[in-house]
Amino acid sequence: MSHHDSRMSGQSKAGEIWFPDLDVIILRALEEDVGSGDLTTRALVEPGVWARAIIEAKETLVLAGLPVVQRIFELLEPSCVFQPTFFDGERVPAGETIAQMEGPAAILLMGERTALNFLQHLSGIASLTRRYVDAVQQWGARIVDTRKTTPGLRTLEKYAVRKGGGFNHRIGLFDGILIKDNHIEACGGVGEAVRRARAAVPHTVKVETEVDRLDQLEEALAAGADIILLDNMDVESMRTAVRINRGRTMLEASGGIKLENVAQVAATGVDIISVGALTHSSPSVDIGMSLHVG
Amino acid sequence: MSHHDSRMSGQSKAGEIWFPDLDVIILRALEEDVGSGDLTTRALVEPGVWARAIIEAKETLVLAGLPVVQRIFELLEPSCVFQPTFFDGERVPAGETIAQMEGPAAILLMGERTALNFLQHLSGIASLTRRYVDAVQQWGARIVDTRKTTPGLRTLEKYAVRKGGGFNHRIGLFDGILIKDNHIEACGGVGEAVRRARAAVPHTVKVETEVDRLDQLEEALAAGADIILLDNMDVESMRTAVRINRGRTMLEASGGIKLENVAQVAATGVDIISVGALTHSSPSVDIGMSLHVG
Amino acid sequence: MSHHDSRMSGQSKAGEIWFPDLDVIILRALEEDVGSGDLTTRALVEPGVWARAIIEAKETLVLAGLPVVQRIFELLEPSCVFQPTFFDGERVPAGETIAQMEGPAAILLMGERTALNFLQHLSGIASLTRRYVDAVQQWGARIVDTRKTTPGLRTLEKYAVRKGGGFNHRIGLFDGILIKDNHIEACGGVGEAVRRARAAVPHTVKVETEVDRLDQLEEALAAGADIILLDNMDVESMRTAVRINRGRTMLEASGGIKLENVAQVAATGVDIISVGALTHSSPSVDIGMSLHVG
Amino acid sequence: MSHHDSRMSGQSKAGEIWFPDLDVIILRALEEDVGSGDLTTRALVEPGVWARAIIEAKETLVLAGLPVVQRIFELLEPSCVFQPTFFDGERVPAGETIAQMEGPAAILLMGERTALNFLQHLSGIASLTRRYVDAVQQWGARIVDTRKTTPGLRTLEKYAVRKGGGFNHRIGLFDGILIKDNHIEACGGVGEAVRRARAAVPHTVKVETEVDRLDQLEEALAAGADIILLDNMDVESMRTAVRINRGRTMLEASGGIKLENVAQVAATGVDIISVGALTHSSPSVDIGMSLHVG
Amino acid sequence: MSHHDSRMSGQSKAGEIWFPDLDVIILRALEEDVGSGDLTTRALVEPGVWARAIIEAKETLVLAGLPVVQRIFELLEPSCVFQPTFFDGERVPAGETIAQMEGPAAILLMGERTALNFLQHLSGIASLTRRYVDAVQQWGARIVDTRKTTPGLRTLEKYAVRKGGGFNHRIGLFDGILIKDNHIEACGGVGEAVRRARAAVPHTVKVETEVDRLDQLEEALAAGADIILLDNMDVESMRTAVRINRGRTMLEASGGIKLENVAQVAATGVDIISVGALTHSSPSVDIGMSLHVG
Amino acid sequence: MSHHDSRMSGQSKAGEIWFPDLDVIILRALEEDVGSGDLTTRALVEPGVWARAIIEAKETLVLAGLPVVQRIFELLEPSCVFQPTFFDGERVPAGETIAQMEGPAAILLMGERTALNFLQHLSGIASLTRRYVDAVQQWGARIVDTRKTTPGLRTLEKYAVRKGGGFNHRIGLFDGILIKDNHIEACGGVGEAVRRARAAVPHTVKVETEVDRLDQLEEALAAGADIILLDNMDVESMRTAVRINRGRTMLEASGGIKLENVAQVAATGVDIISVGALTHSSPSVDIGMSLHVG
Repeated sequence: MSHHDSRMSGQSKAGEIWFPDLDVIILRALEEDVGSGDLTTRALVEPGVWARAIIEAKETLVLAGLPVVQRIFELLEPSCVFQPTFFDGERVPAGETIAQMEGPAAILLMGERTALNFLQHLSGIASLTRRYVDAVQQWGARIVDTRKTTPGLRTLEKYAVRKGGGFNHRIGLFDGILIKDNHIEACGGVGEAVRRARAAVPHTVKVETEVDRLDQLEEALAAGADIILLDNMDVESMRTAVRINRGRTMLEASGGIKLENVAQVAATGVDIISVGALTHSSPSVDIGMSLHVG
Repeated sequence: MSHHDSRMSGQSKAGEIWFPDLDVIILRALEEDVGSGDLTTRALVEPGVWARAIIEAKETLVLAGLPVVQRIFELLEPSCVFQPTFFDGERVPAGETIAQMEGPAAILLMGERTALNFLQHLSGIASLTRRYVDAVQQWGARIVDTRKTTPGLRTLEKYAVRKGGGFNHRIGLFDGILIKDNHIEACGGVGEAVRRARAAVPHTVKVETEVDRLDQLEEALAAGADIILLDNMDVESMRTAVRINRGRTMLEASGGIKLENVAQVAATGVDIISVGALTHSSPSVDIGMSLHVG
Repeated sequence: MSHHDSRMSGQSKAGEIWFPDLDVIILRALEEDVGSGDLTTRALVEPGVWARAIIEAKETLVLAGLPVVQRIFELLEPSCVFQPTFFDGERVPAGETIAQMEGPAAILLMGERTALNFLQHLSGIASLTRRYVDAVQQWGARIVDTRKTTPGLRTLEKYAVRKGGGFNHRIGLFDGILIKDNHIEACGGVGEAVRRARAAVPHTVKVETEVDRLDQLEEALAAGADIILLDNMDVESMRTAVRINRGRTMLEASGGIKLENVAQVAATGVDIISVGALTHSSPSVDIGMSLHVG
Repeated sequence: MSHHDSRMSGQSKAGEIWFPDLDVIILRALEEDVGSGDLTTRALVEPGVWARAIIEAKETLVLAGLPVVQRIFELLEPSCVFQPTFFDGERVPAGETIAQMEGPAAILLMGERTALNFLQHLSGIASLTRRYVDAVQQWGARIVDTRKTTPGLRTLEKYAVRKGGGFNHRIGLFDGILIKDNHIEACGGVGEAVRRARAAVPHTVKVETEVDRLDQLEEALAAGADIILLDNMDVESMRTAVRINRGRTMLEASGGIKLENVAQVAATGVDIISVGALTHSSPSVDIGMSLHVG
Repeated sequence: MSHHDSRMSGQSKAGEIWFPDLDVIILRALEEDVGSGDLTTRALVEPGVWARAIIEAKETLVLAGLPVVQRIFELLEPSCVFQPTFFDGERVPAGETIAQMEGPAAILLMGERTALNFLQHLSGIASLTRRYVDAVQQWGARIVDTRKTTPGLRTLEKYAVRKGGGFNHRIGLFDGILIKDNHIEACGGVGEAVRRARAAVPHTVKVETEVDRLDQLEEALAAGADIILLDNMDVESMRTAVRINRGRTMLEASGGIKLENVAQVAATGVDIISVGALTHSSPSVDIGMSLHVG
Repeated sequence: MSHHDSRMSGQSKAGEIWFPDLDVIILRALEEDVGSGDLTTRALVEPGVWARAIIEAKETLVLAGLPVVQRIFELLEPSCVFQPTFFDGERVPAGETIAQMEGPAAILLMGERTALNFLQHLSGIASLTRRYVDAVQQWGARIVDTRKTTPGLRTLEKYAVRKGGGFNHRIGLFDGILIKDNHIEACGGVGEAVRRARAAVPHTVKVETEVDRLDQLEEALAAGADIILLDNMDVESMRTAVRINRGRTMLEASGGIKLENVAQVAATGVDIISVGALTHSSPSVDIGMSLHVG
């Protein structure tokens, strides 16, 4: 394994995952785990010992976060060599090697847990997303995420959703308008809220509004909403909403959607299905790292 | 509701949850969600409007993270008034009010999602922990967490485990010795690894070692391990290990432990049961916030 | 002037200007100017001396940034009393008092330059924006900003544009699609680029594309661009573009627009006029602070 | 263009522009613009595509900030190759290539706007400074900057002033004494203020005082001021001040100095002319970047 | 003890010690010591318990750093009440109470060690400085510090030197010129180095040069050095240097100066005596904190 | 000296000293000293000049902190070449070369003071620690540090103690239990305090308690303390304590221990001797750096 071929610092950054805050997130995670140093490794492993590490899928999964793993070891020790077998977005069968590394044993041990914590969490999101996406694939609906993300990890979690085949909703409060119950109440109705929003917001931003009942739908359409979110409606109401809309605007289903019912929801003809569980309740997938010294 | 009685900035800090990095974690989460500002609220809500917010449990849960919620709104606007009904560690029945707040409507809307993201995640951990703790209560075993935490949230997640009735394992690599397979291999055996660790580490730190097989147990005991982790053993082997140990050292069961089998594990007589799922796979619990203007 | 009435920390945050990163920006600015301490004040002013400061417009201006001034002194010393006469977005005639403060003389002197640097720069942007907005008011066109902002101050500068009566374009690369020459070349044509963008981006994001020539306009329209930017076109071409478009999509004029020709551009019927100079070349306006001790 | 020859990370740091906080300033600027990622590039440009970028002067300018541009792309992607044609401080004719780069197209597009925002702003300052410096070159007076800088950019702006041929005044409140009206009032006169300052300050720091009227000049001289600032005086008064001073101390002209009158001010014989407009009102200069793929 | 009278947040900031980075330094120190929480206090002290703490001098000392102590507890818990008996710069006899506090016991215990670490270190510097100052008081020489400070604490340590009656030398490389051996060698002589420095540096900055031998002194004087540092000269040479200088410029003695010989050095007539040991080798003074619950 | 052989970035990180926060500590120290740039070097040294620097022990010392020095220059300029002669933990005789470097003269001068400040301080601690360790070597007692460290430098100072042959006590409040007077008072006795602590703390954490008098010792033993700290006892009482203990638990001597009496304390048979002076009062050792240009 040649050093030159396997150093990939460039690719990890040029790739889709990079963003200016990534190193800060990684260093904070390392700080939590490594703190003032790894007592066990300091006591037992000679600084000069070189080792090879193999990262392996312990269950079948959709991979997300591998460039984060690479970056962790790059930050710990630039001479570490990283060799991926799979790439983010790919399905990895149980038992397959995801990537191999070479570097000082002390460094590989120091970064192991932090690296796996990112990889297991992000691959967990990608894997769950893929199941939703597969479930609706015969209909045109997009599976999208929400703002119900883990504090501090939103950008990475939204990346994992894309790697699982999903799409992203707005990033936060700053890049999209979404009018909710509370706003509607404060404005005296959906129509008025949509009109005010259209008048005030940047021309580059779409105006989306929730509707709880079908009678609000026509009002929202008339006021020129770009997207209408059908909040916690039953499947029958969604089907009616699709009929009423006649393709005039984009319809998003939201609330109470699970793997068991997502296909039914997609079958109603809605354009977008948003699922909070992708990011707030996806279980971690099982990934291990084994070390080989000498 | 008097302003004086309900301001609680002091208590949130004096309480168990406070640590020097908490505000940084909160501000990073707000930065992710609020960024350069809340477009919807800016378009629809007058700055001067005051509102009341009610935080409500949508399912039965064990509460954790309420002081984080309070601190979020304190940082956004010191004049917000916060009135808790329940405290962290308490079981909240579905439909109950967890806390009430008063403050500018724009502020309450701006902080809502970030606050709920923390509260739903941490209460999810506390609620899951409580189920494990309840399952083993007739035996003496402690349920403890692991280092398999969400990057950036370890201190808060370990707090939530305590609030669910669990105990904490070591915080990270810096405050405890845990000798694993890879270390053992590098040292030529459990006994040698434990002896080296005892010689090198601070006198305040306990030495824990994994054993994968029963024949390693006696070697670890002889070398003076303070804690022995039975890694991925079946229940029968654990029972044998407890017999062999005869109370000489603390035994920790780890690996593959689920709600379904945790009672059996506890019944073997081990002292400690560590469960990674508490922090890496606990689903979010459902908590809502409703706003009342005027 | 009662202490209770004039403390405004809440309002400055509830107001439009607040965002999670504001204090960081202010503290970095103070760090630059104050560093390890104010040598002159330390040598000449007794710590206990209290003073009154008057902030005054030395020329007629549109105000922007007053809550930043207030926050600077709040951070330096919470007991400072701040009393505004005007609010952001208002036109202040030359010679008028903008705000008054009371506090320790040493604190008022320490914060003076930093406060004025923000206020003069942001009011400079608001004042220039207002001139553009006034120049086009008889037509419907919006004056909008660009990403040509001063590094580190984008959120505040875009706020100042709004306070001058302008609107904001996208915040950065993350919240809008704008296809430029280089992208078009890489994709083999406007139409293809727009189609790819529509397929890939979040459903909440509009797709905008530049066109340099009128023959690209029809292609962009056919591909479903949400906004079309007429890049560096002469007024005659813009007029033709408006005719071709027949209101099907939003048209934005950009490039080479100055106060002298902005009315002509607006008269063509374009919807949006973006002006980089609002943020990259607006001169500072003259504002002074005088101190009155005892 | 060989990779080895053109990598310049060392030089950018060894050069005059480097200071410990530079990367923080750059990363904050990238964070503002790139945030969670470049939507347009992600949708349209394949990660593996390599490109060449040419940075070109669209008007004649004095260059400042090129090492910042280089550092931006180094931080985004260490394998980027940077080849400058001109160096900071040089006059670049309109139409000339300032520098060329090679790197991943996605990286060059991601950094373009941030890089140009720095370069256009800093070159704007250097170019304006050069005009002042040229205007006074037949007299001995130095053109110097002030503390009226853009918040967050002081070190870079003062660098740009030097590259335009100007000199720096004190950096901030911490590295020089400048006694102003308010201090004088608080101390009961210029002489007393200067004496107190001399007694208290570090021996390495010069004492400068403002005088508004000629009768204060003698008092300041007698008290031993190292530098005397003639505040907002007319040219005639300055000439008198120079006569009175007879070279005993350094005289600085300040207030109301413009390109139109700076030569007259210099002709009075003052040593130093400070001009706030260098940093607070210099228009951006026009610089473009074009991309060539394949 | 009334709450209103004893809250002193304002004063600590208005006082001499405040600078924009102070809270960062304090929070980093708390992070080191408190980390994820105080295990002992969490186990043993009820959150609601209120206590009184007394800070006491265990040896006679010159106080420095008390506002840092106050700020630490303010940051931990704003409701803490702080009542100083002595102020920075005062001599405190052994056994005297320096300050009293009231607050939650858990908070007082959490901040104790961090607070004392600052106070013992800074008072150690002030106390040692005072001994040097007292030793030279019959001559006019100033005792000044150097750049040999503890990394991260320079601003506070230079403050402590002032509180001990000393003066500060330049803060760092950025606010003063000091030409050393290496520079002289690179320039081909003291005179040339001084001339180049005078031509290049800001007009507000003094030029200081080292001389190792008396024959360099005249050259430095002729070139116009503002301050001349006599580097590691014996007392006899210093006396000669003072004679040669005849008051033309400021002379600074540096190198090998100890409490035992500082009076002799001062007696030579030098203006300035710089002592690295003030900050790099001052022993901590003994200060204790006792807690009284209930 | 080949570039390839002497670059050691990997080793400095793989070594014992590295921890995630190290670069932050170094950059803050550089920021303090270099700030906006080195005026002297900028005025006198051409950017292109290359030099060799020799770091030399001016007195005999035990080395600690050399990897910090290396990292400082790596951060300033990655092309610097670093060649150590000695390694941390080794005794360096006066006059010996500790390390050599090559790099741009401007960079070597810029980093010199910061590098030496770290190296002199940490080697001061290691050297003092070694004297204590040597003094007790015929007995089995360990010399350990305390939490009385310099704010901001705890991890590095504890590293230096290890390099001097000492051991570390707990890092902070978060990784060990130490029950002190105040806790005992609040709990109604040593025994009760120890029992409460054992019930509450993580199973990985030892419980240590202070005892001031011999009658508390039996109570602490009975309650199951893992370590007992004999606080400020005289040598005779310590000897009695060792007799009473009969090896049942670990005994730590603390308070008033100096080089003069540490051997007597060790002779009592205690296991651990903690010495605050190692970190709070160790004088800096003398180390110089000389530059050779051309």
